[in-house]
Amino acid sequence: MRIILDGMGGDNAPHEVVEGAVLALKEIQDEIVIVGPEKKIYKELKKYTYDKNRMFVVDATDVITNDDAPVRAVRSKKDSTIVKGINMVKEGQGDIFISAGSTGALLAGGLFILGRIQGIDRPALASVYPILGNKASLLVDAGANAECKPNNLLEFGIMGSIYMEKVIKRENPKVGLVNIGVETKKGNTLTKAAHELLSQSHVNFIGNVEARELPKGACDVIVTDGFTGNVILKLTEGLAWNILKVIKKKFTDGIKAKLGSVLLLDKIKQLKTEFDYSEYGGAPILGVKGPIVKMHGSSNANAVKNTILKGIPYVSESVVEIIQNSVLEIEEITLSEQ
Amino acid sequence: MRIILDGMGGDNAPHEVVEGAVLALKEIQDEIVIVGPEKKIYKELKKYTYDKNRMFVVDATDVITNDDAPVRAVRSKKDSTIVKGINMVKEGQGDIFISAGSTGALLAGGLFILGRIQGIDRPALASVYPILGNKASLLVDAGANAECKPNNLLEFGIMGSIYMEKVIKRENPKVGLVNIGVETKKGNTLTKAAHELLSQSHVNFIGNVEARELPKGACDVIVTDGFTGNVILKLTEGLAWNILKVIKKKFTDGIKAKLGSVLLLDKIKQLKTEFDYSEYGGAPILGVKGPIVKMHGSSNANAVKNTILKGIPYVSESVVEIIQNSVLEIEEITLSEQ
Repeated sequence: MRIILDGMGGDNAPHEVVEGAVLALKEIQDEIVIVGPEKKIYKELKKYTYDKNRMFVVDATDVITNDDAPVRAVRSKKDSTIVKGINMVKEGQGDIFISAGSTGALLAGGLFILGRIQGIDRPALASVYPILGNKASLLVDAGANAECKPNNLLEFGIMGSIYMEKVIKRENPKVGLVNIGVETKKGNTLTKAAHELLSQSHVNFIGNVEARELPKGACDVIVTDGFTGNVILKLTEGLAWNILKVIKKKFTDGIKAKLGSVLLLDKIKQLKTEFDYSEYGGAPILGVKGPIVKMHGSSNANAVKNTILKGIPYVSESVVEIIQNSVLEIEEITLSEQ
Repeated sequence: MRIILDGMGGDNAPHEVVEGAVLALKEIQDEIVIVGPEKKIYKELKKYTYDKNRMFVVDATDVITNDDAPVRAVRSKKDSTIVKGINMVKEGQGDIFISAGSTGALLAGGLFILGRIQGIDRPALASVYPILGNKASLLVDAGANAECKPNNLLEFGIMGSIYMEKVIKRENPKVGLVNIGVETKKGNTLTKAAHELLSQSHVNFIGNVEARELPKGACDVIVTDGFTGNVILKLTEGLAWNILKVIKKKFTDGIKAKLGSVLLLDKIKQLKTEFDYSEYGGAPILGVKGPIVKMHGSSNANAVKNTILKGIPYVSESVVEIIQNSVLEIEEITLSEQ
C-alpha cells in the first residue's frame, strides 16, 4: 500500500507532518509519499532516520490555502500538493490521500478529480465526534453539504455505518438521526423524510436522537445535514474549550485551590487527552471514488501519525468498494419513496 | 401588576411552584395569582406565611401534560391551568402568564388564545443561553419553529434584541446569526438570505457567528431557526452534564484526587451554579399578544422565584408593545427584498 501525504497542509506544515510520517513509518509496513516542495520536505526529513526504501518525496511547488476559493484553486493550481496528491490516487500511484489542508479544496478535488461514486448524490465529510469517558462517535455530514435532501441523509447513514464498521472496527454500529424529539413524527420536513428512508435501510438505525444525548455516546454514527453537523462539531469544540478554560482559572484562584489542583494534576491531564481530537485520526470524505482524509488544520505529529495508521484499514478493507456496492440499496429505498 | 402563575406545570408542581411564589412575593410589590386545583394549592400555601392581600388562587381542575397533543389539548381542556391562565391575560385579569408546563401547549395557547402580533409571522421561544464565566446570551428560536423562512430570522433578531435590552437590561445588545462561517456569503439558502435582512435592520447586527464562539459569549442575542436552536440548547446541556459527570468521577478516583477535590469544593460548587439554568429565569414566547414565559420543567422554588422577578420588567417595560411597534420595520425590510 502506498499512502500519499500532503506535506504542506495545515498550520504546522511541513515540520509536524514530516515528523508524523516518520513516526508512522516505524509502525507500518507500507510506503509513504510526501507531496510538497522537495527542498523544504527533504530539509525536514534530514532531521530523522527512517527507512528510505519506504518513504519518498514527490515535488509540488504550489499550495492551496484556506483563503483560496476551493473550486477555482483546484482548477487552476495544477502543481499544488492537493491537486497533485489526489491525481496520484486517481492514476493508481497511491492508495489514499491524507491532508491537513483546506477542507473545501479537498472536497472539490475529490469531486472533480476522482469524481462521485455513481449513485451517491452528495459526498460527505465524516468527522470523529469525541465522547468524554466513552468511545467516540462518527458525525456525518460534518459540513460538506450546507443544504441536504432526505436521500442525502440516507447516504450519510449508510456510508458512515460502513466506515465505522470497517475502519473504526465497531461491530453493527448504531446509527442515529439528529432530531428535536425522539418520536418518529418529530422534526422538520428533512428529518421526517430521512427518518422514513433510514428505517428502510439495513443499517442498525436506532431512530431519532436528541442533541442532549450525543455527548453521552447515544449512537456510533450521528447522521445530520452539513449545517447542523458543523454546528454540533464547532459548538462541542467551543464549549469544551470554554469549560476547561474556566476550570483552569477557577482551580488556580487562591492557595487552597492551587494546592487542590496540584493533587488533581494527573486527572486534569487525562481530561485534556480525552478532548484531544488528534487521538482519533482524521475525517474521511465519503462518497468519492477513492480514499481522501482531511486532518485537523492544527494537527501535530501525533495526529498525523494516527491519521496515517487509520488510513490503512480504510484502504485494506475496501471501504470505497463497499460503499459502491451499497448504492443499489440506496437507490431502491429512495425510488420506493417517490 | 398581577402575575398569573401555573400552579401545576413541571416536574415539581405544585410544591416548588408555590414555594417560589411565596419567595417572590417577599421581593415584589405586585400580586400573584396561582392557577390550579384549589385544594392542592391551598394545602401547599398553608406551609408558609405570606401577604394574603397579594396572593390569590384561581381554581383550575385540569392539567395539560407533555403527553397531550398541544393543539388539541388547548382546544379541549378548557379548565386546564394553561388555558385558564392565558385566558386571564387575554381578558386583562392578569399581566403575564408563567408556567413550567408543556412548551407546545404554551405556544399553542399563545397563538390561539392571545394570537400573533399582527405582522409577526412566527412567534418564537427565546431561551437564556448560559455562558460559563460570562453574562448569558439569549437564544431565539429555541425550538418553536422547526422550519423557518429568512423573514422569521429577522423577526427573531428584532424581538430578541428588544427583550434583551428591556428585560435583561443589556444595552445595545449584539445580535449574531448562527452560521457555518463568518463570511457574508457563507451558509445555506436560509442563513444567506437572513444575513441580508438582518444587515438592513436597526439592531446591532454583528453578522455571522460560528457555533464555536457561542459558549464564549460572542453575542448577546443568538439568532437561528428552531431546529438548530434546539440542537444548540440541548447539546450544551448534554455536554455540560457529561463533562461535570466525568470530572466528578475522575476527581473522586483515588485518595490523592479525593483530597484535591476537597480543597476545590468551593470552586466545583461555583461551576455548578454557573451551569444552573434556574439563575436566569424562564423563556419568553415572543411575538404573541401578551407576555407568556415558559420555565424549565425541572424548575425548583428558586427558579420559579427568578422567573417571576424577571417577568416584572417584561410587563413594565412594555416589551409586547415595543415588538408591535417594530413590525413596520420588519415589513419594510422584507418587502424591499422581494
